[in-house]
Amino acid sequence: MSSLDESGKVLAIASHVVSGYVGNSITTFVLQLLGLETGTLNTVQFSNHAGYRQLKGFRTSAQQITDLFEGLKMTGQLEAFDMLLTGYVPGEKELEAVGTIAKEVKQTKRSCFWLLDPVMGDQGRLYVSEGVIPVYKSLISYADLIVPNQFETELLSGVKVNSLESLSRAIDELHLIYKIPHVVITSVTFTNGAQKMKCAGSSMTSSGASRKFVIDVPIIDGFYSGTGDLFAALTLARLREFSSEAGLLETKSWTPPDETQALDLPLARAIEVVLESMHLVLEKTKAARDRILAAGDEPEDPVARRIRNTRASELRLVQSRKELLAPGLTSFKAIPLE
Amino acid sequence: MSSLDESGKVLAIASHVVSGYVGNSITTFVLQLLGLETGTLNTVQFSNHAGYRQLKGFRTSAQQITDLFEGLKMTGQLEAFDMLLTGYVPGEKELEAVGTIAKEVKQTKRSCFWLLDPVMGDQGRLYVSEGVIPVYKSLISYADLIVPNQFETELLSGVKVNSLESLSRAIDELHLIYKIPHVVITSVTFTNGAQKMKCAGSSMTSSGASRKFVIDVPIIDGFYSGTGDLFAALTLARLREFSSEAGLLETKSWTPPDETQALDLPLARAIEVVLESMHLVLEKTKAARDRILAAGDEPEDPVARRIRNTRASELRLVQSRKELLAPGLTSFKAIPLE
Repeated sequence: MSSLDESGKVLAIASHVVSGYVGNSITTFVLQLLGLETGTLNTVQFSNHAGYRQLKGFRTSAQQITDLFEGLKMTGQLEAFDMLLTGYVPGEKELEAVGTIAKEVKQTKRSCFWLLDPVMGDQGRLYVSEGVIPVYKSLISYADLIVPNQFETELLSGVKVNSLESLSRAIDELHLIYKIPHVVITSVTFTNGAQKMKCAGSSMTSSGASRKFVIDVPIIDGFYSGTGDLFAALTLARLREFSSEAGLLETKSWTPPDETQALDLPLARAIEVVLESMHLVLEKTKAARDRILAAGDEPEDPVARRIRNTRASELRLVQSRKELLAPGLTSFKAIPLE
Repeated sequence: MSSLDESGKVLAIASHVVSGYVGNSITTFVLQLLGLETGTLNTVQFSNHAGYRQLKGFRTSAQQITDLFEGLKMTGQLEAFDMLLTGYVPGEKELEAVGTIAKEVKQTKRSCFWLLDPVMGDQGRLYVSEGVIPVYKSLISYADLIVPNQFETELLSGVKVNSLESLSRAIDELHLIYKIPHVVITSVTFTNGAQKMKCAGSSMTSSGASRKFVIDVPIIDGFYSGTGDLFAALTLARLREFSSEAGLLETKSWTPPDETQALDLPLARAIEVVLESMHLVLEKTKAARDRILAAGDEPEDPVARRIRNTRASELRLVQSRKELLAPGLTSFKAIPLE
C-alpha cells in the first residue's frame, strides 16, 4: 500500500452537517478513507448546508471550542496530531479561538503541518462576518499551506485577479505578505461563461522566491457545494504522500530543497492527482443529478425547485471511493506560471 | 462489488468525540466505508470518550435535536433514509426527542429499518440517567433490531442472564414483550474470568416464535471503548447485505420467511461476518496497544497511567479498513440455541 498507510493524524476543525456534504462531513470521510486518522472538532452542527438557503442547527461557541481543546490537552492528545486542517468558522471570536488552538498545536509539535482554508466567501459574496477577514490575515503566517479561492485571494493579497499576470502577482504577494510556504489558488476564471478554470500554486524557496505552476481545469456545469472542502482534504492527504516520497515529512513545512523546480514540487504533483479525483467525483455527481432531475416533474414552487436541485447536486462521495483512493493516471498537467 | 454498493442511506443518531472512537465517530466511518450514505446527528460533542474518566464538551439539547430534525424535514430529506441507527443519548428528554424522530421517520417511510442500540450501561453500571430506562422500554416496539449487551438485556427483559437457558429465555421475553423482530445480545459471560463470551440472536417468525442461534467469541485481553458501537454499525451494514441477497429489503423489518431456520437467517450469517471483522480489529488494536505500552516507562501517577492506557487502547479503525471491508472467510459459526 502507498505511504498514505503510514500513521498520520489530522485534527480537522470545520463545520458539520447532519445530511449532505460540506466541511468536516467531507473531510473526515476522505482523510480516513485515504488512511489518515482524523480528529474532528465541529464548529457548527447544522441540519444541511447553506446551499439549501434554509437550515436549522447551532454554532459551537468560542468558549465551547476552547473547552473541547482543553479536554484534548487534559488527555494528552496534542502531541498526537501531525496535521491540522481548518475550514469554515462562522464568527470572529470563534476563529480567534481556533487560531489560538492552531498556534498551540504547532508550538507543541513543531513538525505539525497546518492547512488553513481561509473560508470567507465566493464570487464576490462574503459568507462569514466581516470581522473574520483581519483575523485570517493575522493567522496565515502561522500556517503552512493556504487554499483560497479567487475571491479570498483578492481579499488576502489586495490584488484583483483577472489575468495570468495578476494571478501570478497575487501568489507572489501572498508569499511576501504572510511568509506562507505553500499556496494553492483554486477555481480562477478571467471571464464570465469561461469553459475552463485555472488552479495555480507555489511552494516558496528558502529565500522567499515563488515557484509557480498553473493547471487548466474544465468547468463542469452545475453548482456543487463542498468542492472547496473536498479539494482541501484531498490536497492535504496527497501533499503528505508526495512529501513523504521526497523524504520531507521531518522538514519544516514539508518545504522541498531550493533546487526543486516548480513542476517537480510535491505540491504540483499532489494537485494534479487531486484534480483528477475532483473531476471524477464531479462527473459522477453531475450524471446522478441529471438522472434525478430528468426522472420527475420540476416543481412549480421556486423554493421546492431549489431544494430539489440542491439535494440532487450533493456530492457522490461514498459512491466515489475508488475515484478518491485511486483516481488512476491523471490527465491534469501543471505548466510553469511566470 | 457487493450489494453494499447499491444505494442505501442511514440516519445515525449518537455521540461524537473530537479525538478517538466511540458512537458516531465509529459509525459514520464504518458505514461509509461499506458504501452506505450516512447522515450523522450528534447527541453530544465531547473531546474524548468517557473511558478517560475526564472530558470536556457539551450535549445537544432535546430542543436542538428536534430543531435539527425540523431542518431535515424542511429540505425534504426524510424520505431519503432507508435505515436509522440510534445509539448513546445521555438524557431522558433527549431520548424522547430521538424517539419522536425515529417514529416519524418510520411513518414517513414504512420500509425504513431501525437498529436501536439501547445504550444504558455495562457490567452492572448505568451510564445514562435512570429515567432513560422506561423511555427505551416504550420505544423498542417501534424498532426492527435491538443489540443490548448482557446488562441491558437484563434491564429490558427482567431475566437474570447467567446460563444458556436464561440467555435463551431472555431472547424469548424480548420478542414477547416488545414484539421486536430481531434481537442480538452481545458479549455475554456466565462466570468471572471466562475465556469466551457468547453472542446470541434471533429473528422472530410471523407467529412470534423465536429462531435462536448462539456463537462463541474468544475474549481479547484489555478494555476497548466503542466495541458496542462498532458491532452495531457492522451489524446494520452486513444484515442489509444478507437481507438484500435474500430479496428481503422491501419486506417489513427485513423478516425472512417462516420456514427459514435459525442458522440460515440473514441475521445469523451477518453476525458471523461481523464477529470476524470485530475480532481482527481488536487483535490489531491489542497488538498496537501492547507495542505502545511496552515502548515507554509506565507513569507513576495513576491518572497519567490510566490516560496512557486508554489512549493506547483506542480502536485501530482506519488501520483496519481491509478487515472491515473484507474480513475473509469467517471462523465464527452459529449453532442453534434451544
